[in-house]
Amino acid sequence: MSSSSRTQVGIVGAGPAGLMLSHLLARAGIDSVAVDTRDYETISTTHRAGILEHDSVRLLVDSGACDRVLTEGREHDGISLRFNGEHHRIDFQELVGATTTLYPQTDVFVDLAKARERDGGDVRFAVTDSDITDVRATTDGERPRMRFTDADGERHDIECDVVVGADGSRSVTRQHVEGREELFRSYPYAWFGILCEAPQSYDELIYSRSERGFALISQRTDKVQRMYFGCSPDEDVDAWSDDRIWEELQTRVAGEDGFELQQGPIIEKTVLPFRSFVCEPMRYGRLVLAGDAAHTVPPTGAKGLNLALADVRVLAEELERFFAGKDDALDAYAERALARVWRAQHFSYWMTTMLHTTEEDSDFDDRRHLGELESLVSSENGRAWLAECYTGWPNKPAG
Amino acid sequence: MSSSSRTQVGIVGAGPAGLMLSHLLARAGIDSVAVDTRDYETISTTHRAGILEHDSVRLLVDSGACDRVLTEGREHDGISLRFNGEHHRIDFQELVGATTTLYPQTDVFVDLAKARERDGGDVRFAVTDSDITDVRATTDGERPRMRFTDADGERHDIECDVVVGADGSRSVTRQHVEGREELFRSYPYAWFGILCEAPQSYDELIYSRSERGFALISQRTDKVQRMYFGCSPDEDVDAWSDDRIWEELQTRVAGEDGFELQQGPIIEKTVLPFRSFVCEPMRYGRLVLAGDAAHTVPPTGAKGLNLALADVRVLAEELERFFAGKDDALDAYAERALARVWRAQHFSYWMTTMLHTTEEDSDFDDRRHLGELESLVSSENGRAWLAECYTGWPNKPAG
Repeated sequence: MSSSSRTQVGIVGAGPAGLMLSHLLARAGIDSVAVDTRDYETISTTHRAGILEHDSVRLLVDSGACDRVLTEGREHDGISLRFNGEHHRIDFQELVGATTTLYPQTDVFVDLAKARERDGGDVRFAVTDSDITDVRATTDGERPRMRFTDADGERHDIECDVVVGADGSRSVTRQHVEGREELFRSYPYAWFGILCEAPQSYDELIYSRSERGFALISQRTDKVQRMYFGCSPDEDVDAWSDDRIWEELQTRVAGEDGFELQQGPIIEKTVLPFRSFVCEPMRYGRLVLAGDAAHTVPPTGAKGLNLALADVRVLAEELERFFAGKDDALDAYAERALARVWRAQHFSYWMTTMLHTTEEDSDFDDRRHLGELESLVSSENGRAWLAECYTGWPNKPAG
Repeated sequence: MSSSSRTQVGIVGAGPAGLMLSHLLARAGIDSVAVDTRDYETISTTHRAGILEHDSVRLLVDSGACDRVLTEGREHDGISLRFNGEHHRIDFQELVGATTTLYPQTDVFVDLAKARERDGGDVRFAVTDSDITDVRATTDGERPRMRFTDADGERHDIECDVVVGADGSRSVTRQHVEGREELFRSYPYAWFGILCEAPQSYDELIYSRSERGFALISQRTDKVQRMYFGCSPDEDVDAWSDDRIWEELQTRVAGEDGFELQQGPIIEKTVLPFRSFVCEPMRYGRLVLAGDAAHTVPPTGAKGLNLALADVRVLAEELERFFAGKDDALDAYAERALARVWRAQHFSYWMTTMLHTTEEDSDFDDRRHLGELESLVSSENGRAWLAECYTGWPNKPAG
C-alpha cells in the first residue's frame, strides 16, 4: 500500500517542538503533517527538562494548547544560588517581574499531543524508513518530499512546501543542510541525575557550588524529587549505591545554616552528558531546522526546551509570512532564531562554568568563580542580568 | 653613618599606593616613613594605567591630595564596546550614575609626592639595601624593623608598629608572609602598547573585539594617544614598523560605519605581559600587603591602580582602628581588601576573555563570545552590571 498527498509543512519530529509548531500552524490555517520514529509511549516517559520560561508558559496557554500548566505547574519566583554553604536568592519576580514554572517536558508533550488530537491534527508516531528529499528546491515548482512508512505499514510520499527538521539532537534532517558548519564544545563533566521518592527539600531550585562540586536540587511532585550532581562523563551509575549518592548530595549542599536534603528511595539513576552544539545555517532551501536538531545546550540554566519552543514560535510567524508570499521569511527565521541561540549558548556556558568544578581547575580559578558569585549576588544589576537570562529574553517581532 | 628611630607605620614602596597611604595616615595623625628603591624620575616617567574609578577620584580630591585631576583629568561618561564593526556604548552615567576619569598613573604619583612634600611627609626615594625584619612580632613588645640606606649613604634602622608592603608586583616584602598561598593564572596573550603623536580618534575608550583580535583605543592628551592591540606574549616590538602597527590597529577597529583611527608618529612601543595573581593572606603578624604586592590583574578593565587605591583607603581606616586598640583591625583589612580583590579578578578575567581572541579558540568559542556581547549590550541589566564593575564597587564601612 502506498499513498501520495501534499501538505504545506512536513514536520520531521513530533516532540514538543514539532507538535507545538504543528499546533501553531493549524491556528494560522496552515496544514502540516508531523511524523516521529519514536512511539508515543517512549516520548511520554523519557524524563527531560522541567523548567519553563515565562514566555514558554504563555505560549502554551495563549495558543490554547494547554491550561494544565497553570494548575499543575509550580510557579517559581526565583532560584537559590548556594555557595560557601549559604543560600543566595535570586528573586526573579522582584528583579525583572517574571517567573519560571516547574512543569516536566513529558507533560508538555502529552498536552500538545492531546491538543493536536482534539483539533484533528495529522501526527504519526512510530513511523519507519522516513526520509526527506529535494529540499534544495531551486527550480521553479520543485518541492521537497517527506516519505515514511506509518505504524500500520502503509507507505507515504508527501509533497511539502517546506520541511521542518525538529528531530532532536541526533537529527537526520540536519544532514541535508549542505555546506553547514557544526560548532561544538564538550565539557569535562556530566550530571548524575536521580529521581527519588521523598518530600521536597526546598520550594525553588537550588544551584549549588561546593568544594566537592556542583549540585542541583529540583522538584517534580510532592512525593517525587529530581536531583543532580556534577560527575565525570564516564561515571558508572552502578558504582553508586543509594547511601553513597545521598552522602554525596548532602555534602554538596551542606553549610553552617544546617540545610539538609530530605532523603528517600532512589527510583532512577542516569548520567546526562554535556555538550554545546550549533548548526549554521538553520535553513537550507526549503528545509529549516528547529530545536535540538539545530542546537544543544548544557542543562545548567534550563534553556534546551525553552529554546525549542522559542524557535517554533518564531518559525510559525515566519511560515505565515512565507505563505503570504514573503520570500525572505525562511532566512528571517534562521537569523532571528540564531540570535537567541547564541545568547542561550552563552548563558548556559556561563551558568555551567560558574557553578561546576573540575579537577583541572586551579585554586585561582576556584576563587575567581567564588569572587564572581559574590560579585553577582551582592549586586542588584548582576542579579537582574542573571534573572533576565534565566526567565528568558523577549522575542523581537517579525520583520 | 647610621641612625635609629621609630615610626608608627613603615611603608615599603612609594608608588601611588604607598604615598596615598602615607598621606591618609598623616591626616589621621599617624606618622609613617615611606621608602622606595626607585628614584623619583623613574617612577614619574614609567607609563602605566590611566583610568580612575569614581571613588579613586573622590579619594584623591576629598583627602586633599590632588585637585588637578578635576581640571586636567578627562571625565568619561562611558565606554564603547566595539564588535561586528559597530560601536555599542555603555553609558555609565545613565546606567549607574558614575563616571571614570582619564588621568595617568604618573600624574597621580606626581600629585601625591607633591602633597607629601607640602605636608612634610617622610618619603625616601632611591634607597638601597632595604629590608624588613621581625614582622612576626609574636612576643609582647616585639616590633618589626625597616632598614635601608638612603640616597645620601646614611643607614637607617626604624622600629615600626606596623610594616606595609606596597612594593609592587615583584614585592620583596611578600616573601615575609610565611605559609602564604600564591594564586596565579597566565594568559596566552599580551598587549602591544603604543604612544603616538596624533589627535584623538574618539572621546571615550573603545574596547574592540574583531576577527583579528583585541584592540583598545585610549587617549592621553589632545596631541598624544595611547593604543593597544592583543599580541603574543613573546611578540618582538622591533618587528613592527609604524606602518605595520597602524594597519593592524585600523583592521581591528574597521567596520561598516567607516570608523578610522587618526594616525601619527609612534613614540613608544612596549609589550605588556598579562597575569592574574593573588597572595593570601594579605596579613602576617605586623606586616600587611597592599596594591600590586598582593595582587595583579590583567589590564583589561583598568582595575590595577584602582584596586591599589581601594586597598590603602581601607588600610588607613583599619590602621586608625589598630592604633585605637582594636586587635582585629589588621585581619579586618585583609578580609575587606580581599573581597574586592576577587571581584576585580573576576571582572578583569571576564573583560579579558570576552574581548580577546586566541589561536586556541574554536569557532564555537568565538561565536559564544559574540553571543555574550550581543546579550550584554542589548540588556539594560547587563550593561548596568558591567558599568557597576567598571566604575567600581562601593566600599563597605569599617567594622
